[in-house]
Amino acid sequence: MTQSNTQQVTNEATAPTHVNGVNLDTLKGTVNAIHEDPGLGVCHFRATNQWVDGAHNRSTVTGFYGAKQEIAHKQTFQMVADEPAILAGNDDGANPVEHLLHALASCITTSMVAHAAVRGIDIEEMESELEGDIDLNGFLGLNSETPKGFTRIRANYRVKAAAEDMETIKSLASFSPVMNTLVSGVPVEVSVTPK
Amino acid sequence: MTQSNTQQVTNEATAPTHVNGVNLDTLKGTVNAIHEDPGLGVCHFRATNQWVDGAHNRSTVTGFYGAKQEIAHKQTFQMVADEPAILAGNDDGANPVEHLLHALASCITTSMVAHAAVRGIDIEEMESELEGDIDLNGFLGLNSETPKGFTRIRANYRVKAAAEDMETIKSLASFSPVMNTLVSGVPVEVSVTPK
Repeated sequence: MTQSNTQQVTNEATAPTHVNGVNLDTLKGTVNAIHEDPGLGVCHFRATNQWVDGAHNRSTVTGFYGAKQEIAHKQTFQMVADEPAILAGNDDGANPVEHLLHALASCITTSMVAHAAVRGIDIEEMESELEGDIDLNGFLGLNSETPKGFTRIRANYRVKAAAEDMETIKSLASFSPVMNTLVSGVPVEVSVTPK
Repeated sequence: MTQSNTQQVTNEATAPTHVNGVNLDTLKGTVNAIHEDPGLGVCHFRATNQWVDGAHNRSTVTGFYGAKQEIAHKQTFQMVADEPAILAGNDDGANPVEHLLHALASCITTSMVAHAAVRGIDIEEMESELEGDIDLNGFLGLNSETPKGFTRIRANYRVKAAAEDMETIKSLASFSPVMNTLVSGVPVEVSVTPK
């Protein structure tokens, strides 16, 4: 009996519950639930934004819809945007395109870390530098043929992990929702109503 | 001589230097400089990201390249991303796709406010709610045919301004760099090197 219990403990210790800081029991629970009922995967993510003044505005995130229910974040998140002086702002926050680069960096990072965890791939350290190209002739309306958005983004990751896992880790970036949104494009519907 | 000086002051007072909190002298200075030398419009925006643990990571923004020079922000900006419990995170920050919605909300807001200012259109108040649809069957790899990113984003603005300006204000969203990036898509190059 004692031996049996000891064996059981050893088995649990053999199957780690955390890899790369990701709780695999929780993640696999979500995966299994959506596998059994695909409708649980439908999510609506949300942000509200309040214009403050000039280029200064503030977004608030409180919760989202997923798993067929409204889910509140455990706290309210606020993000501030502004523009540097050259773009007539007060430089009191990163600007919108810099926030976009943060969204992309954080999403690729999380996607590689989580999907590596599920595959049992240990990652010790990960950092990245992102850079995107914009020609202000577009945004400022000086040349109608100049694209107004990013024309190219480079995301350079440095990862401390086993050499044989590097190619797999890189391939996992392909799961990133933000990267897929940016590469494929997405319809954006804008409405303006009187306040 | 005194009359001439007075006249000059009156003219300056007639042309407002700030509309919607936007410093028009600064903005028009940038526009004129790029109009005369289009190469000044080339910008490289940047963010670095540091993985912390699990779904928790942090981006840092310190400056950018524009107007043919490196430009430092007046302070360092940090943005934190995490995931809610259902996605195996600790919910210590908005998640990457929520940061993407913030980037879009802030960019449309700033684009409408700034381009309205240049046109002499006063905006008293502006707020917005953004919502985007994602099916986690894609990100989790449960269905290879399900898109992994946002499939649709709605951006609903409420604006306090003159009724006759509403349609123009809405049309100015089309200048937004983040919206144009999302709608048109952008190539993203990912590299992974050992740390």
